[in-house]
Amino acid sequence: MADKPSIPKGTRDFTPPEMGRRMHIFDTIRSIFKIHGFLPIETPAMEHLSSLMGKYGEEGDKLLFKILNSGDFTRKLSTEELTSIPSGRLGTLIAEKGLRYDLTVPFARFVVQHRNELTFPFKRYQIQPVWRADRPQRGRYREFYQCDVDVIGSDSLLNEFELIQIIDEVFEALELKVLIKLNHRKVLAGIVEVIGEPERMTDITVAIDKLEKIGMEQVKAELEQKGLQAEAIGKLEPVLQMQGSTREKLEFLEGFLEGSETGLRGLAELRKLFAYTGTSASGAAVELDLTLARGLNYYTGSIIEVKSAEMEIGSICGGGRYDDLTGIFGLEGVSGVGISFGADRIYDVLLQLGRFPERSELDTKLMFVNFGEQEVESILPILSRLRAQGLAAEIYPDPVKMKKQMNYANSRQIPYVALVGEQELKEGLITLKEMNSGEQEQLTPAQLLEKFSPAK
Amino acid sequence: MADKPSIPKGTRDFTPPEMGRRMHIFDTIRSIFKIHGFLPIETPAMEHLSSLMGKYGEEGDKLLFKILNSGDFTRKLSTEELTSIPSGRLGTLIAEKGLRYDLTVPFARFVVQHRNELTFPFKRYQIQPVWRADRPQRGRYREFYQCDVDVIGSDSLLNEFELIQIIDEVFEALELKVLIKLNHRKVLAGIVEVIGEPERMTDITVAIDKLEKIGMEQVKAELEQKGLQAEAIGKLEPVLQMQGSTREKLEFLEGFLEGSETGLRGLAELRKLFAYTGTSASGAAVELDLTLARGLNYYTGSIIEVKSAEMEIGSICGGGRYDDLTGIFGLEGVSGVGISFGADRIYDVLLQLGRFPERSELDTKLMFVNFGEQEVESILPILSRLRAQGLAAEIYPDPVKMKKQMNYANSRQIPYVALVGEQELKEGLITLKEMNSGEQEQLTPAQLLEKFSPAK
Repeated sequence: MADKPSIPKGTRDFTPPEMGRRMHIFDTIRSIFKIHGFLPIETPAMEHLSSLMGKYGEEGDKLLFKILNSGDFTRKLSTEELTSIPSGRLGTLIAEKGLRYDLTVPFARFVVQHRNELTFPFKRYQIQPVWRADRPQRGRYREFYQCDVDVIGSDSLLNEFELIQIIDEVFEALELKVLIKLNHRKVLAGIVEVIGEPERMTDITVAIDKLEKIGMEQVKAELEQKGLQAEAIGKLEPVLQMQGSTREKLEFLEGFLEGSETGLRGLAELRKLFAYTGTSASGAAVELDLTLARGLNYYTGSIIEVKSAEMEIGSICGGGRYDDLTGIFGLEGVSGVGISFGADRIYDVLLQLGRFPERSELDTKLMFVNFGEQEVESILPILSRLRAQGLAAEIYPDPVKMKKQMNYANSRQIPYVALVGEQELKEGLITLKEMNSGEQEQLTPAQLLEKFSPAK
Repeated sequence: MADKPSIPKGTRDFTPPEMGRRMHIFDTIRSIFKIHGFLPIETPAMEHLSSLMGKYGEEGDKLLFKILNSGDFTRKLSTEELTSIPSGRLGTLIAEKGLRYDLTVPFARFVVQHRNELTFPFKRYQIQPVWRADRPQRGRYREFYQCDVDVIGSDSLLNEFELIQIIDEVFEALELKVLIKLNHRKVLAGIVEVIGEPERMTDITVAIDKLEKIGMEQVKAELEQKGLQAEAIGKLEPVLQMQGSTREKLEFLEGFLEGSETGLRGLAELRKLFAYTGTSASGAAVELDLTLARGLNYYTGSIIEVKSAEMEIGSICGGGRYDDLTGIFGLEGVSGVGISFGADRIYDVLLQLGRFPERSELDTKLMFVNFGEQEVESILPILSRLRAQGLAAEIYPDPVKMKKQMNYANSRQIPYVALVGEQELKEGLITLKEMNSGEQEQLTPAQLLEKFSPAK
């Protein structure tokens, strides 16, 4: 036999049991997007490379999968060009299309392209795979799904609140305990403004993040090493030492940010958001976390991140507000806010914690054993009627040995097996076997249909 | 403003109304696959080019989208190779991966790769996009969805019958009248065997197909031109002239194929299949069509094709039996049978005939008008409870002019709008407006929840 076939590294096949679990996640997420009035869109797997390049930083450009132009792709290139141009740039000359890297940039492109067909505020969700030429490793794939939900064309904090509700409802439905962390870019901007180091937003968040691990003296030394003035470090110290509940922290920041209009505006938004989430039926903890530095180069307002409260696995959902998403495609001044659920990490958490439902909706409930042509003919009309009742049912296609057929039913975990053999055929009956208990009963076709009627 | 952004030709964005219609098709198909006990799988968008090349003929190889290797893709090539190798072969040297061209080859690869994890007969369905670098034209796209359903590892004709039932049930659920056409490769093989021209299967099907258009004399002239012996053409004439019902045709062929064991075996299968479909509750016409030449290079048994009975649009579903699908990946002797639904053509038919359900499941049922912070606070708990009841409901995020909010509700076709203004807030009531009739009523929160309870 030839070599066993394989698939490109970093990609995956999904077998039926995996599909069942994945559909549980996607269906849950989709149903909650839906009751919040979000509408689905889809965009093509390929975009013009010009739509993608430069949107994800230099590193991102390298991680784009490029699609070779069809036909004679070297036609327009001279021998010299072909051999002298470095492959990075050569790639863009022989490939004009690239695979979607995330759902955010295609969404921005979509909004600009279709702006006259859309109703704003536009509440959209999108569940599609994305591709990144990253080095594959445990938990990191070259093809993976994102589940994005965004509101575009509205400044209202109600949108942030709604997204937090969605987070809460999704993880409640998935039976996962999570921690929802909030931050605000304007609050961070206010802090660096107050200490007189407006360019140091990232350094500050890193410092706060490291505090617990390396201690105050180390953090101060690192900040000094990065070139922060001693005075600035001194002013920052109370922020680093800030303790207590979210409410206490907000109160402290109220005083600290007094000199910064931007900071106070951010703080007011955070306060309002915490007030909203306080009134929600949320079971999840929502807390302030100044170390959240997610997407500081594009988020302009609130920053949201969700972690499992039950295991260490990094962020399983996150997002924030971006004041100018569509600007990259020439449409200025449209504010948006959105979050993205990481389906693959959520899958890993559910699997590890054993929280997937035991049986999936996918599975066949009843299988008829195949004893031969005559028996099959008597079964077919009953089978059709069972299916018309919505029951997932099948007949083993070949009249092979009983043992083989029962093995099939077992490995498919089919809970009921129906037998119509010579005797049953004569009497017009069906023997129904419950596979778990091994119990059998004899039923008329009408009784069988009644037993599996959708009302039951 | 910059140029309006666009997407690669032959690809499409799907806006929410289009998504609603597409999901109607996919959900219908999926639910019927499910009640027949088929299980979902998914395969990656990219396969090794070596898995795809040579599987779709020379023309197919050209239509594969190739993905440029990451990093320095010209590294391993000398200057001479880079400039002298024709781009067709050069492509395979700088691109090792390609986009899925159909779902059949990846399925064969999947079965071989996972054969130890699967239960045979393996009944799988797969609904995913495929990509072809075809010249885009009306109704032909470079990215489109296929909905495939196959049984692999069983010879039984019950599988063919089940697929025909699935066709019947899908188009009944979609409210489309269709014509299901059957043919059998072995019957065609028998015919060419009987007339002594065993290599001329395709020529014969083309001739039969043209008969109505160009007449018997022309067809005979063409066959002669193609090099068929006069004697063979003479022997073929009764087949060309064959008239009447499927039953009559089958009877005629019984005599005609007497000398061909292969032909008679095919005929026996067709007879059995027509007998099965005769006992089904099928509303669709099922008929013999010897001109069906679909996939003659890989189908080995029955051939199935479905056409709309209401408009001219070519095949909207088709398939057949292939005795050696997995042979291309080194696993011999596994018979399979499958069909593929063409979601895009089905979409076009439904749209043109106006058969899409008027409102989709996606839509928001109720929108609260936003009159300001205080009113919103009183609404939020009610909104949460409505959603907990499964109602798709939203609140307009910004307290803008009433007219703008009502325009949003109108263009989103939201059937109910709820108003909590100053007066309602004081009285603890909600004004509910039915948008179609314009009728209004005042309800308590409890009455509103009752009105939209899922039992209603």
